[in-house]
Amino acid sequence: MGCSKEHSEIIADVFLAAELRGHSSHGMIRIKDYYELWKAGRINVNPNVRLVHESPSTAVVDGNNAVGMIAARKSMEIAIEKAKTAGTGWVATRNSNHFGIAGYYSMMALKHDMIGICLTNANPLVAPTFSVSRMMGTNPIAVAIPASKHPPLVADFATTPIARGKLAVAEKKGEKVPFGFVQDRYGNPSDDPAILKSGGSMLTLGGDRLHGSHKGYCLSALVDIFSAVFSGANFGPFVPPSVAYLPVLDRKVGEGTGHFFGAMRIDAFQPKEEFKTKMDEWIETFRSAKPADGQEHVLIPGDPEREAEERIRREGISLVPAIENDLLAIAREMGIEFNRTY
Amino acid sequence: MGCSKEHSEIIADVFLAAELRGHSSHGMIRIKDYYELWKAGRINVNPNVRLVHESPSTAVVDGNNAVGMIAARKSMEIAIEKAKTAGTGWVATRNSNHFGIAGYYSMMALKHDMIGICLTNANPLVAPTFSVSRMMGTNPIAVAIPASKHPPLVADFATTPIARGKLAVAEKKGEKVPFGFVQDRYGNPSDDPAILKSGGSMLTLGGDRLHGSHKGYCLSALVDIFSAVFSGANFGPFVPPSVAYLPVLDRKVGEGTGHFFGAMRIDAFQPKEEFKTKMDEWIETFRSAKPADGQEHVLIPGDPEREAEERIRREGISLVPAIENDLLAIAREMGIEFNRTY
Repeated sequence: MGCSKEHSEIIADVFLAAELRGHSSHGMIRIKDYYELWKAGRINVNPNVRLVHESPSTAVVDGNNAVGMIAARKSMEIAIEKAKTAGTGWVATRNSNHFGIAGYYSMMALKHDMIGICLTNANPLVAPTFSVSRMMGTNPIAVAIPASKHPPLVADFATTPIARGKLAVAEKKGEKVPFGFVQDRYGNPSDDPAILKSGGSMLTLGGDRLHGSHKGYCLSALVDIFSAVFSGANFGPFVPPSVAYLPVLDRKVGEGTGHFFGAMRIDAFQPKEEFKTKMDEWIETFRSAKPADGQEHVLIPGDPEREAEERIRREGISLVPAIENDLLAIAREMGIEFNRTY
Repeated sequence: MGCSKEHSEIIADVFLAAELRGHSSHGMIRIKDYYELWKAGRINVNPNVRLVHESPSTAVVDGNNAVGMIAARKSMEIAIEKAKTAGTGWVATRNSNHFGIAGYYSMMALKHDMIGICLTNANPLVAPTFSVSRMMGTNPIAVAIPASKHPPLVADFATTPIARGKLAVAEKKGEKVPFGFVQDRYGNPSDDPAILKSGGSMLTLGGDRLHGSHKGYCLSALVDIFSAVFSGANFGPFVPPSVAYLPVLDRKVGEGTGHFFGAMRIDAFQPKEEFKTKMDEWIETFRSAKPADGQEHVLIPGDPEREAEERIRREGISLVPAIENDLLAIAREMGIEFNRTY
């Protein structure tokens, strides 16, 4: 597509991280989306990602409409550099695009003995409490915290009960979904995974007001504001589509998609080893919580992804036929040899 | 109790803010708890709240076992001072106690044209996903963001579907609670608001794994780690009780209760007026979302509390007889005249 070798490798690295961590919804399935956006001239493969404003502990980055990974990685690097001198570094990024998994960028901080944070807004699919309008994305939050003898704690979660991809899977299987995930165009509870096609919307974490959906709405709203209002990106319903089959929106209130990154030096708070040992103790305490009847053990944030990675590194990444066909078609269009090594 | 006039006024100010914002569960009902903790020698009314470690954008504060409001207000002031020079300021506080409403401290940033953040851990009542052990408090998150012509956006919410107080109310009324709030000692869903008395526990936001309780668990865990591991306070199940009728715990893993505060200068990211105007636009966009059938309008985080404050400032704070009796008894014990002005 014209990306530099360096940029191509970064993009591939993030896709691979998603596949390895078991989040294939953010992995190779997206290559076709990126390709179609590029063909439609809606993404910049030779971007000049620039720092446009800064203070000792903050910066604003303009992604120049780059593939999200390129803008995001550079932004997180700046956050880490800021943290080296200021103790913490906080970067808001505008004019970016879909960037894969948020967890990837938060985990960049770990090798610097820092806590890493990453937020992003995303295509509007989710309705605020009491509403039927699609105003927010699944707006994820990722935080990575180093430990000593235990692996780092990595929380990486959408601020909705489920990811969009799970609706598509249920729909393909002809299954219903549990109530609490989606509503119809009038705001009635629905168990139809295809309801978004007829004006329905996804619900925020909590599901309904009684069960705290207003808290999920708060969270999602905060992610949107930190990502877009801090940076000057499009917020809420104005976030540009991350797929080419949806049209460019008529109205924009900023530039592209927005992200927010944080890096916090451990020793800006506690001596490094003391902090990490305390995290070990935290992890051991929570791991030893008594399981509910029928449960084997209590998990630490990041356990499921690490277990997936161990398995997938052993067994390999499985490529479903539909995605393989997409990749073959793209390779053919571009005159690239598609090497199957299996 | 021996608090200085200045400290007494700060404590009263936070209690009043809770009452005015409609969160009487964090208002005058707590005075008796604080009084009993003091009588039991478990709280320090003449504290030396000290900054014990710092970097350009961070600090750790030791609350010296102060009434929570005293440690918290000082900590937030330090965060604001740090932000003035570094762009952002982040303070982790240990050796503190119950501090009232988190929203109060986040809102201290507003008059400095800053975004304010406040987290705290709390007495363990909440079980992680898949567990029956009470490992976490209702661990709230508060974020205050200034706008221009609209009132600021203030999100202030526990990371559980409901506050503890709502269980007590339902129990007193002899009512059941909806499923999704609590579970019994084996991890079975329960609608009994008194279930905590027989080994039950509260659930995290999301309710069950299917509906995303693991995300509520992540959030609550992050609040705990930022508040306690960053500061050197007690984490998770080791947070000391905020009431005197519960015994001091045998084991401690840090000092007292932990909080975490953040202040972010608007103009460390965007020109002040531009940011505030964009927040107005964000607020107007979300306010104009289409209501679901049967709903009047979509709320902005902070609307319910502001509406409560307008009403309560007009009608006065209502003191239920049980609390009035508590205050009368305390006044009698301490030889203080209790002036009823109504």
